[in-house]
Amino acid sequence: MPVPASHPRAEPLARGQRQRLLLRLLRHPGQRQAKRLLARLHPADIAELFALLTPGEQQALLGVLLELRLAARTLRELGSETQRQVFAMTPDGPLASMLGRLTPPDAVDLLREMDEERREAVLALLEPSFAARVRNLMRYGEATAGGLMNPDVSSFSGDLAAGEAVARLRQLAEERRLFYLYVTDERRHLLGIVSLWALVTSASDRLLREIMTRDVVTVRVDMPEEDVAQVFGRYDLLVVPVIDEDGKLVGSISVDDVLDVVEEAATEDLYRLANLDTHETLATPPARSVRLRLPWLLLNLLTAFTAASVVGLFLGTIEKYAILAMFMPIVAGMGGNAGTQTLTLMVRGFALGELDLRKSTSVLLRQMSVGAMNGFLIGLVLALISWLWERNLVLSGILWFASAVNLTVAGLMGAAVPTLLRRLKLDPALGSSIFVTTATDVGGFLAFLGTATLLLGALAR
Amino acid sequence: MPVPASHPRAEPLARGQRQRLLLRLLRHPGQRQAKRLLARLHPADIAELFALLTPGEQQALLGVLLELRLAARTLRELGSETQRQVFAMTPDGPLASMLGRLTPPDAVDLLREMDEERREAVLALLEPSFAARVRNLMRYGEATAGGLMNPDVSSFSGDLAAGEAVARLRQLAEERRLFYLYVTDERRHLLGIVSLWALVTSASDRLLREIMTRDVVTVRVDMPEEDVAQVFGRYDLLVVPVIDEDGKLVGSISVDDVLDVVEEAATEDLYRLANLDTHETLATPPARSVRLRLPWLLLNLLTAFTAASVVGLFLGTIEKYAILAMFMPIVAGMGGNAGTQTLTLMVRGFALGELDLRKSTSVLLRQMSVGAMNGFLIGLVLALISWLWERNLVLSGILWFASAVNLTVAGLMGAAVPTLLRRLKLDPALGSSIFVTTATDVGGFLAFLGTATLLLGALAR
Repeated sequence: MPVPASHPRAEPLARGQRQRLLLRLLRHPGQRQAKRLLARLHPADIAELFALLTPGEQQALLGVLLELRLAARTLRELGSETQRQVFAMTPDGPLASMLGRLTPPDAVDLLREMDEERREAVLALLEPSFAARVRNLMRYGEATAGGLMNPDVSSFSGDLAAGEAVARLRQLAEERRLFYLYVTDERRHLLGIVSLWALVTSASDRLLREIMTRDVVTVRVDMPEEDVAQVFGRYDLLVVPVIDEDGKLVGSISVDDVLDVVEEAATEDLYRLANLDTHETLATPPARSVRLRLPWLLLNLLTAFTAASVVGLFLGTIEKYAILAMFMPIVAGMGGNAGTQTLTLMVRGFALGELDLRKSTSVLLRQMSVGAMNGFLIGLVLALISWLWERNLVLSGILWFASAVNLTVAGLMGAAVPTLLRRLKLDPALGSSIFVTTATDVGGFLAFLGTATLLLGALAR
Repeated sequence: MPVPASHPRAEPLARGQRQRLLLRLLRHPGQRQAKRLLARLHPADIAELFALLTPGEQQALLGVLLELRLAARTLRELGSETQRQVFAMTPDGPLASMLGRLTPPDAVDLLREMDEERREAVLALLEPSFAARVRNLMRYGEATAGGLMNPDVSSFSGDLAAGEAVARLRQLAEERRLFYLYVTDERRHLLGIVSLWALVTSASDRLLREIMTRDVVTVRVDMPEEDVAQVFGRYDLLVVPVIDEDGKLVGSISVDDVLDVVEEAATEDLYRLANLDTHETLATPPARSVRLRLPWLLLNLLTAFTAASVVGLFLGTIEKYAILAMFMPIVAGMGGNAGTQTLTLMVRGFALGELDLRKSTSVLLRQMSVGAMNGFLIGLVLALISWLWERNLVLSGILWFASAVNLTVAGLMGAAVPTLLRRLKLDPALGSSIFVTTATDVGGFLAFLGTATLLLGALAR
């Protein structure tokens, strides 16, 4: 993790200026100034710049970064697509020496982006003890506490006096981000934590076990990262110790690592509700975007046919009274909108842990009733407008009825589909919008055209 | 902010058990055990429980919490709806003494939930210097760095020796969350920061100005909270000092406060894309849900009429060849899906700061081309299926053409609408899905029914 010393002032303008200047320096002879400037830029800013360069320029910049020992931390900040480009243009040796400068978890993140073969080649070149720590870390699932944590946490004995602890801190390697001491027994079972503040402010002869906090929030190494994020959010923590099944301290997670998890989880919800592949960004090349979106659009097309075939049942009615074809998409569309409202509420509820499956039936009924009430009101407005348009009371009545029915269906399906997916241990957002809108299309067409067919005599005078 | 000492172990099961037990204790005589249990629960857990109680039980629990001096921090954790209920059942006096136990920013959050009159009444009862700090804080916008920061930051002179600084820390009030010392000149201009780690590990006669980091990330007090969140995410910070326009230190923001901002921002995007009011949750009473959703559904209804009226133009064609009514929603629907894909990508891009308006034209063209390509492919599939269904080559051709056109429109509008909203300094997600789907409905109906009308002779043999 970068240390404050490497932080530029964060005014975006200043940052932009530096980047533009650097870009010029890199493109024309000016290496020396470029180096001086690079040394003052934060890796995150260099990474942003990196994406703007041509492969040739990237190669050149990479060389300079290697000299400045900034390459590793810059690489860490790049998007996974750009990272793969860099891997391609960097031999195993330099790549290994870059990774060697990162924390084990950061190194693991990068190694996970490489194919099996390359990964082994690079691992073989890493300093053995570091490589061992990395391999050990890779045993944990990418999306668990084990995948997030930094395993290099020093533990202290409870019998250590505050003064001695401070003395030991002085011997530790640069660890500006160390804010809590973890107190463990000889077998590394976590006994408590001592904040650096408590250490500094207590008499130097007090024992750590006397000043430590015993009742600490911990997370299990196999806890899913979304749950870890919820623990941080719930208890306003900055750092959390990670323990294994025997309560042994195996690492610690800092809240800034969780920030990314929260953003990724939110993006995932958004993307899945819109039937987007989570790997797509605005930077994705068009050809790849097409490939990533096509399967979802095809699935959509097939379900659209299901709805259309319902319309197909009533073509006779439409031939006799074509105006139905005009109002039909309105009834279906309103249902789709109402369904998406409920669906989104449910998906977010699951994501933020506000919703548990035990309450699901009451939630279902509530969402249905909200749908029904909105359907009754929207249907009334629709009926009025259609009456002004067509002056056909029967048509208006059918529109009113069909809207009420379809928005009830919308509330029901909008709540039922994500709940079902969750019960099946699937992501409640995955493909759910497709099922919900299909249901509201079918419901809308069936309720509207079906009733119209029954009342056709009265309808088409 | 709660201190580690108050943290229970975070295993959800244990938490659930405690809550259920407490619920029983509160509902039957068992106050004494209830108190012992409450003292061990984290305010966040008590808050969760609070929502499950009847008003009467809430009143009782509130009394106990007041005795235990836990009321304030529990209140802080409640949802805004429940908070208002508590305000209603608590007289000004106790309410003021609760707020007095919070940090000024937390107190401000609660005061902002009260109506003008009540707020003034409570403020008048607060300890004057605290009230002054609160009023001062309320001058800043709720959604800015000023609204997030804690103004109570102690600053240190650069001439202070590390040893003296430690001595001064001992005199400070309980501040377990203090991890950095802010070094300022006599007029409180920020000169640098000293991490507690650096303080502990350097010789006690070193001056702070010798060990401080000069190049620090800071945020301006008027910076929007989303930008603050991006600064934290970008530079992996735990705490950031807040300065005013003259570079004077006015407070500090901790990353765990930013965690909420990130989650709220993501929820906002999701909700706005689904046309939900950001105040609605699964806990919102049905009647209120209906009120909150109705305006959006009405807006949707009106735009649906725009699309429907396009169908109205071609009723003659539909009468002659009713099968068009069956395929018409497919073409429109596929456009809606493709438009939502692009729209979501854009909204997230703006939210994560990946997208700047200078690049907008190239993004627009790229999204259009992706839409066109998908339209060409999806249209081909649609044409094939429809041929198997109807054996009408003209119809299949029209479907192919209309799909290609409409998905191009989808890509264009999906990118253009949020960009336009952003240029108008509005939220790119606000109502944009309504405009995009209306455009794709109109586009779909026009392209499909329009072409069908032109080729009607060949179509309906």
